[in-house]
Amino acid sequence: MSALFTKHQDLLTKALDACSHRYAWSGWPENPSSKIHGEEKPAAGLARFEALLGQDFPLAQPGEVARVGEEVSPYTGEPLGVRYPRADPEVLFTAINSARPAWAAATPEARVGVCLEILQRCGEQLFENAHATMHTSGQSYVMAFAGSGANALDRGLEALAYAHKAMQDVPATAHWERKFGRDGVASLDKRYRLVPRGIGVVICCATFPLWNTYPALCASLATGNPVVLKPHPAATLPVALVARVCREVLAEAGYDPNLVTLAADTRADPATLPLIQHPDTAIIDFTGSPRFGSWLEQNCPGKQVYTETAGCNSVVLESTDDLQATARAVAHSLCQASAQMCTSVQNIHVPAAGVRVAGEWVPHAEVAAAICSAVDGWLADPRAAATLCGTLFDPAVQSNVDRYRQLAAAQQRILRDSAPYENPGFPAARTATPLVIAASEDDRDWYREEVFGPVSFIIANADAEACLRDATGNARDCGAITSHVYSTDAEFLARAVDAYHAAGASVACNLTGMPINFAAAYSDFHVTGLNPAGNACLADLAFVSNRFRIVQSKFMGVAPAPA
Amino acid sequence: MSALFTKHQDLLTKALDACSHRYAWSGWPENPSSKIHGEEKPAAGLARFEALLGQDFPLAQPGEVARVGEEVSPYTGEPLGVRYPRADPEVLFTAINSARPAWAAATPEARVGVCLEILQRCGEQLFENAHATMHTSGQSYVMAFAGSGANALDRGLEALAYAHKAMQDVPATAHWERKFGRDGVASLDKRYRLVPRGIGVVICCATFPLWNTYPALCASLATGNPVVLKPHPAATLPVALVARVCREVLAEAGYDPNLVTLAADTRADPATLPLIQHPDTAIIDFTGSPRFGSWLEQNCPGKQVYTETAGCNSVVLESTDDLQATARAVAHSLCQASAQMCTSVQNIHVPAAGVRVAGEWVPHAEVAAAICSAVDGWLADPRAAATLCGTLFDPAVQSNVDRYRQLAAAQQRILRDSAPYENPGFPAARTATPLVIAASEDDRDWYREEVFGPVSFIIANADAEACLRDATGNARDCGAITSHVYSTDAEFLARAVDAYHAAGASVACNLTGMPINFAAAYSDFHVTGLNPAGNACLADLAFVSNRFRIVQSKFMGVAPAPA
Repeated sequence: MSALFTKHQDLLTKALDACSHRYAWSGWPENPSSKIHGEEKPAAGLARFEALLGQDFPLAQPGEVARVGEEVSPYTGEPLGVRYPRADPEVLFTAINSARPAWAAATPEARVGVCLEILQRCGEQLFENAHATMHTSGQSYVMAFAGSGANALDRGLEALAYAHKAMQDVPATAHWERKFGRDGVASLDKRYRLVPRGIGVVICCATFPLWNTYPALCASLATGNPVVLKPHPAATLPVALVARVCREVLAEAGYDPNLVTLAADTRADPATLPLIQHPDTAIIDFTGSPRFGSWLEQNCPGKQVYTETAGCNSVVLESTDDLQATARAVAHSLCQASAQMCTSVQNIHVPAAGVRVAGEWVPHAEVAAAICSAVDGWLADPRAAATLCGTLFDPAVQSNVDRYRQLAAAQQRILRDSAPYENPGFPAARTATPLVIAASEDDRDWYREEVFGPVSFIIANADAEACLRDATGNARDCGAITSHVYSTDAEFLARAVDAYHAAGASVACNLTGMPINFAAAYSDFHVTGLNPAGNACLADLAFVSNRFRIVQSKFMGVAPAPA
Repeated sequence: MSALFTKHQDLLTKALDACSHRYAWSGWPENPSSKIHGEEKPAAGLARFEALLGQDFPLAQPGEVARVGEEVSPYTGEPLGVRYPRADPEVLFTAINSARPAWAAATPEARVGVCLEILQRCGEQLFENAHATMHTSGQSYVMAFAGSGANALDRGLEALAYAHKAMQDVPATAHWERKFGRDGVASLDKRYRLVPRGIGVVICCATFPLWNTYPALCASLATGNPVVLKPHPAATLPVALVARVCREVLAEAGYDPNLVTLAADTRADPATLPLIQHPDTAIIDFTGSPRFGSWLEQNCPGKQVYTETAGCNSVVLESTDDLQATARAVAHSLCQASAQMCTSVQNIHVPAAGVRVAGEWVPHAEVAAAICSAVDGWLADPRAAATLCGTLFDPAVQSNVDRYRQLAAAQQRILRDSAPYENPGFPAARTATPLVIAASEDDRDWYREEVFGPVSFIIANADAEACLRDATGNARDCGAITSHVYSTDAEFLARAVDAYHAAGASVACNLTGMPINFAAAYSDFHVTGLNPAGNACLADLAFVSNRFRIVQSKFMGVAPAPA
């Protein structure tokens, strides 16, 4: 039994139990408050983040041909000035290949132990990671600490638990004997060995750089595959912090640090294609645009490809007992992280004739007004607004907002206009409050794709059935990661659940009083793999069980002791 | 709990335990002897087989456009005259699609119960299946009863056990609650539903028609996917017998029989491409040629493709304490089923200088002679020879033998010539005893591909290391399903195991006193998926866990009772 495995076994056991019963649990603190952590830890984290700025990031990797770095803080508009190694893929892969045999030969427990230690150490840098995430992906400090910290680490541990479970399913040895006809008893000792597939490339996204990175990293690394982390050029620092931890832990545990490497690049000269098309790359984990995700799914035969992309997440509002609570729940999704989350709602389907609220009809316009007013409610306090909305990670998001503002204004369809909000700590922050647009089915071109950023549509479909038909059709054709239904009618709810499921989508019913964007590790199966928003679920057995293969040796009589 | 699941639960439990501990176990009898079964059952099976000949096979399926059938018995040279429905794929798929929702909605236990009943019923027709297999794939009666009967059923049960395990890993419901900030406790009921991927097409091979068919059928059907069985035109009857059982059991259990259909075709007008390219086909299981298998792996993006093809299985003979026993073991593989098994040995690597036998050097020529003489030994008794060798399933196999006879004769390389043997029960049987050819590394073109049928090479490599290098290189480049090493040197064995594993191949060491072709369900992981002989293992978690996906619904408060 490896020392690191033993050290963290309780954590793993708890995660396995949480995955089996899918209750609420977290292995890390979600709240960065100094009331919990004291003053010193948060300050030290900030200091460590600041010490990285304007420097070469401390990462010594093979094949470095240049230093690159083009991150600009959405909070300050200033370049971070951190420079990361750009690698010659051939040299990098040669070094990685020489690290593979020892890692493949390590026991599953040893590898899982290393991954547990990595997660634990990443948990110790949550404060600097929060600042790094803030100033790259534009999240608020609180969101960066929780969503890109604790919640993301939980997802890594969840994937690791599945990897452990899948590997544990294969015994190391067996004894087998039987009689064949008149021959004597044939007695065989058998040994089963897990063989990793090859190099795994993890392509990370800009807005939640670690959300799928921890799971993909753990799934591949635990099953014996080296991992190349390919961060988004706009959000490299959080990933680099993880790569550094991985390399430290691997080296301390006696393995080659090149089992985890960072492949930084620039927008002008991306590194992705040479990495994924390299013959030694066997696994590709991708988070990003539906277009490139779909290209990867179609064009990498013989490689394992796991994608999470995006869709047009919907709300169908049929009826409710509490319009304010429902409006607040939906509005929260429109505001949170400026709707740059994979779980953000975009399309709000409300019957043209309105909805029943506690038995009374409320007209469509009044429902729309309640949602817009709830948005305003969330934004009333500037400090709370800043925590909820964060910034727009990239100027392109502002362009999206501007384009739809113009389109909608031309047709007098703006229900709630977008404007910058003033961020108390960062006067130069790139911010935009939610733009809410009135739409009908004639505007399907507008809302049948992901409009990235704080742009949403309140769609007046003919009736509740038409709402459901439109929303589920869009989920099937254009993808969906989250879908919401609000209804007090049990039969409608049941129909809605079936309709979303038939479209390959999961669905949440009547969620209020909580952030409806929240995806819970160990409990929610995140992404179904059944619609265009991704082909994999993070995490389930299918996410891990084909990252390794099984070879066996059998010996007549007693197997010789391993060399 | 479904009645069929309860009825067969003990069998499933036993299979799950056997998979976990990988000991020897079988759920069905391997021996057709009337000493075990009495006279009546075997006779009734034969009578039922004979009653099928020269008839339309009793199978009423949608979209039948013609009856086809071109099976010719390798034992009699006579057509079987059984005619099977040829289907219009569009009509067939429309009917299948209307069967899907109810099957998808059934509980995993209900579906597993139906599969268990199917296997049990197929177990009751082992006698007619044995005759059907004999007169199509050309196996001997005993082999057809065991290898294509009990052993194949065991593999179906093994895959079913894995499917059950993977589905059981997902709970049906969960309760989740936690506090978010100052909001109260959010309390959610969650439901998880398994969603089958779509239609599964199972492409069966001619020589072991049910070997991979039962596992693929069970893996797809249990996870909710309808299955289209596409038999080889030369070996349709065994598959049709299974299809009939499936349809009966499904109908009796209250499901649409079109969940399992037979898609018979002819060599001149194959049905495969329209089936696999149909947009509703989500899963393809293939057993057959490496060329088409590889094509499928590369050209079906978005579909799950599981292949078992072929390779050039090897023996490396470094040293032995008992040359006779070793020669007998290898010779058995050259004879069994006329080397038409996926586990048959083709390339026998023996150092040019000979091998150490119980400490004494025995020259290469003497080792080769021992193997050839052991072949003769297995063939000495005509009845035993017929049971061991069976027939050549197709004239093309005889052509392979003839071609290599000519090549080898021209260079005076024939170590043991092939000739027909006289089959006691069937004077017109198409038979050929093993052709054994002397080769060196200069003849790599001859042996670096599968030569289907009783053709083998005794290859004189420079030394034992060269034997190992050649054999493992061929496994990596050309595929291998079984590999054997004979050595009394523990260090050489350890090196050999590592070398085969590095080539993506499993390896058996020093097997004697048993049929070395034998692959044990529940114990051997059959096919590694790491070399060109196939991309899947039948069975492991990876074989089953991606045949379904998971969708969820979550409800604030208490979930309404299911409709």
